[in-house]
Amino acid sequence: MSLKITPRSTALRVAIQHKINTKTKPLGALGVLESLALQIAEIQNSLNPRLIQPHVLVFAADHGLVDEGVSLYPQAVTAQMVQNFIHGGAAINVFCKQHNITLRVVDAGVNADLSQYKTEILHQKINYGTKNSLKEAAMSATECVRALDAGADVVNKVAKTGCNVIGFGEMGIGNTAAASLIMAKITKLPLATCVGRGTGLNDSQLVQKNKVLEAVLAQHTSATSPHEILMSVGGFEIAQLCGAMLKAAELGMCLVIDGFICTSALLLAYTLEPNVLDYCIFSHCSEENGHQAMLQFLGVEPVLRLGLRLGEGSAAALAYPLLESAVLFLNDMASFESAGVSEANV
Amino acid sequence: MSLKITPRSTALRVAIQHKINTKTKPLGALGVLESLALQIAEIQNSLNPRLIQPHVLVFAADHGLVDEGVSLYPQAVTAQMVQNFIHGGAAINVFCKQHNITLRVVDAGVNADLSQYKTEILHQKINYGTKNSLKEAAMSATECVRALDAGADVVNKVAKTGCNVIGFGEMGIGNTAAASLIMAKITKLPLATCVGRGTGLNDSQLVQKNKVLEAVLAQHTSATSPHEILMSVGGFEIAQLCGAMLKAAELGMCLVIDGFICTSALLLAYTLEPNVLDYCIFSHCSEENGHQAMLQFLGVEPVLRLGLRLGEGSAAALAYPLLESAVLFLNDMASFESAGVSEANV
Repeated sequence: MSLKITPRSTALRVAIQHKINTKTKPLGALGVLESLALQIAEIQNSLNPRLIQPHVLVFAADHGLVDEGVSLYPQAVTAQMVQNFIHGGAAINVFCKQHNITLRVVDAGVNADLSQYKTEILHQKINYGTKNSLKEAAMSATECVRALDAGADVVNKVAKTGCNVIGFGEMGIGNTAAASLIMAKITKLPLATCVGRGTGLNDSQLVQKNKVLEAVLAQHTSATSPHEILMSVGGFEIAQLCGAMLKAAELGMCLVIDGFICTSALLLAYTLEPNVLDYCIFSHCSEENGHQAMLQFLGVEPVLRLGLRLGEGSAAALAYPLLESAVLFLNDMASFESAGVSEANV
Repeated sequence: MSLKITPRSTALRVAIQHKINTKTKPLGALGVLESLALQIAEIQNSLNPRLIQPHVLVFAADHGLVDEGVSLYPQAVTAQMVQNFIHGGAAINVFCKQHNITLRVVDAGVNADLSQYKTEILHQKINYGTKNSLKEAAMSATECVRALDAGADVVNKVAKTGCNVIGFGEMGIGNTAAASLIMAKITKLPLATCVGRGTGLNDSQLVQKNKVLEAVLAQHTSATSPHEILMSVGGFEIAQLCGAMLKAAELGMCLVIDGFICTSALLLAYTLEPNVLDYCIFSHCSEENGHQAMLQFLGVEPVLRLGLRLGEGSAAALAYPLLESAVLFLNDMASFESAGVSEANV
């Protein structure tokens, strides 16, 4: 994929900040909402930004590395959860419905035949799960490029609805392992800083996961570029997320980043195109060990800290009403002048 | 007012926790939302809690102490902001509209004649602002009792709509000063820990505010009970908030506490009836110096940390969709069994 992500425009910064500052409230009193309002207005290069047709995209795929016992759940749960999404029973269904967000689930590489769900999901399956990265590359170079392109294609489809804000989510048993490996490769932090309990490993299981991932890294010491990292230790959902994020930024959308796995995809996207960060809103800091360090590496602050570690785009959906609040206060609040309220004595 | 607040029922705790644990998500993966779901279900003593007719109540009043230069804004702003609420131009209007929350504004003691707004606001004016607490008691014993009762009356009115969840907010130029004095009295923390910049004092203005409040405390050393504290250094909106919170807890509602000033009212309510805490959800930690220490004194965790310092119940309204999310996941998510999803290998 060939992309050109421009930095977001700062042409209106002074005017937007003036509009924020003259609202009937003490200067800066809406805190993070004011930063969000400024960012969204700049992304849209408008004094009156609008959030249109919000979507959450959940990319699902399986991981060969689960053979090494890195997850508490069997691989079959990935496909079962996709069916749960289809039937509306998962957390992300509930939160998207609550906030009128359109949910689209993408089969990026689930190890099950989901072709019966013709219209319920988007079919972008690269393969039936990745290979076991302890033994070989997780995917081929061709698969990697196809996955990046497939992610971009999904965003192109969604853009046709008029959508200008996307929450990125994922589902894939074993994908915290892949995300930790990507994080270790990109940030060069010690592996132990990058590895966490995922769906809920106990202490001894966590030690085992660390051992496995240490051995995986030893297998793939030469992988350094984002493409090489994806091929050697990545996942199809992570690769599609990376491609999707880059495309969404190129299209000037607001990107709402979910948790640990989505942020690992963004680490890759950011390495390829640092300007992608201008379009990103970080919905939360996950309980998963490593997420805080990822956010620090990127130099960004999350909106929510709710002790979540679910994925699925759940935190992106939960943070969405705060994006709406930011846009609404900017557009709908009265100014000191329009409301006839006296300003501060300064 | 005579009240009997019972602790919230724990009769269903095991059953509620089981319901939470069998939802299709890793154990505990919804973090704070799981604690909120448990609390709300216990408050309602139901496995299927519902949030009905949510309200935000904004109690507005003026403070005689503003004569001493403790605020950046002139006293007239209190009445001007009430008019802004009436016309829909304030932050709290925008956020309540966004989340379908009914906003009711109460004239608890604004220093202006607001009687022309017959139905737009609730008229519970105790007096035209408090007296200057540097020179005399802020209010009489009669006014204090009337204010507590008036707050309870407002909640009784709101309860008739079927409402079972109330966000508490306030507006009153100078009321961070009163809240700091109450905090110092109740928590016995050093005054400097309790005093902040309010609407945005600079360093030298903050020094001046500290000096004034030190002198006010020296005037009222004998005040120790909640009633005595309210009378000597309180405010009409704070007293009505205190009475309203106690009544709401007595009625078994969910109380959503806003920021620094509302929490000062809760400190008084908590001193009178510690069980009130069982019904409280703390919407956020304010940027106002002292709020974090108040929350620590109460031993509670806030839902949001967004750097807000606006009041008006704004954070209560912003946190409300997360309460909804908690109730919705508890009621609407599938269980592992109902969705046919495999459970963890443990």
